[in-house]
Amino acid sequence: MIATLSDIESMEKSFRTNLINHLSGGKAVHLLGTFNKHGQSNLAIFSNVIHVGANPAMIGILFRPVLNDSHSYKNIQANKRFTLNQIPASMVQAAHQTSARYPSNTSEFEACGIEEEIIPEFEGPFVKNSLVKMGLIWEEEHVIKTNQTILIVGKIQYISVEDSILLPDGHIDLEKAQSVSAGGLDSYYQLNKVAQFPYAKVSADASHEPRRNS
Amino acid sequence: MIATLSDIESMEKSFRTNLINHLSGGKAVHLLGTFNKHGQSNLAIFSNVIHVGANPAMIGILFRPVLNDSHSYKNIQANKRFTLNQIPASMVQAAHQTSARYPSNTSEFEACGIEEEIIPEFEGPFVKNSLVKMGLIWEEEHVIKTNQTILIVGKIQYISVEDSILLPDGHIDLEKAQSVSAGGLDSYYQLNKVAQFPYAKVSADASHEPRRNS
Repeated sequence: MIATLSDIESMEKSFRTNLINHLSGGKAVHLLGTFNKHGQSNLAIFSNVIHVGANPAMIGILFRPVLNDSHSYKNIQANKRFTLNQIPASMVQAAHQTSARYPSNTSEFEACGIEEEIIPEFEGPFVKNSLVKMGLIWEEEHVIKTNQTILIVGKIQYISVEDSILLPDGHIDLEKAQSVSAGGLDSYYQLNKVAQFPYAKVSADASHEPRRNS
Repeated sequence: MIATLSDIESMEKSFRTNLINHLSGGKAVHLLGTFNKHGQSNLAIFSNVIHVGANPAMIGILFRPVLNDSHSYKNIQANKRFTLNQIPASMVQAAHQTSARYPSNTSEFEACGIEEEIIPEFEGPFVKNSLVKMGLIWEEEHVIKTNQTILIVGKIQYISVEDSILLPDGHIDLEKAQSVSAGGLDSYYQLNKVAQFPYAKVSADASHEPRRNS
């Protein structure tokens, strides 16, 4: 299929939504945990997550335009704190269910049967059975003018990685972790490692640092 | 492993780089094609790609802080046009090699053995053997203050998806496409579909639209 701008603009709405959401490929997906001002926990699935930097350690999440039921966004505004939890394949159905419109006085942990974990090191609701968890503090945010989505950048304050999937060099074995990536809005994929390469160098030039963003 | 902020700050540098780059999980990864002002093509691998919106159709890419050899960023500044091309598993080694520091007068297409495709519908170098290709125009950008990385948001002007992986509802079969996702800076994973779910609804409330960002 070939589509130009006018083709894209005239596509049937749900076809376009599915298609455009798949163009980015297999995307990082997380469960984002927050508390509201009454201490009520909230959990929601987000597939628009990017690595922003390793030092300081930062991650960005894109939020849709703020509406009355944007609980995660509003909780972060209020508390400046949130958690991100990788999703193992065994939890994918419950994780997807967090995207339903639960009222603000309902915890998706309870409603979706996901075990909540509270720890002394970081104030935020974690997903107990996630193998890779982070606690973050709001650092900055940017409104995308064209569609009013909002990129929140958080600084990582706390990390928990199950020992069995952490390699000595800092890699995480995402296949062994059975972590999922998302395709579009409703599909989930498990990861099978196909390759790992050394830092790429121009053949006659072995002295340079790698060019990739870190 | 549990790490607090002071633990993270005192980690050995390459361990921290690997670890933090893996926390986001299996990430969308693309080959980004540009032309410089002399018409010289450039191709570089980017794993910090997010879906921004379906209507208008937009994608964001995070660039590291601008340096002399930030060819992709500078070319986009000059031409406002770029392409994104999903990476099939068969091309992953050549795709990774584009991250080497080639001089500005070298095309990574040639240097890495990746076939370039020029089309009449959109001015930009595409990856011929990619099954999912987009042509985008620069729409806006945002500097992340904390580390000077730059989010460029592009509006999708042109889409090419191989017919054999496009489903009637607009989904792309990322498993059949053999698309890869990235783990950290140097690992690549193929995708095996584990689940697809209907729009999640609160059980007693079937009338609402889904809450997920589209």
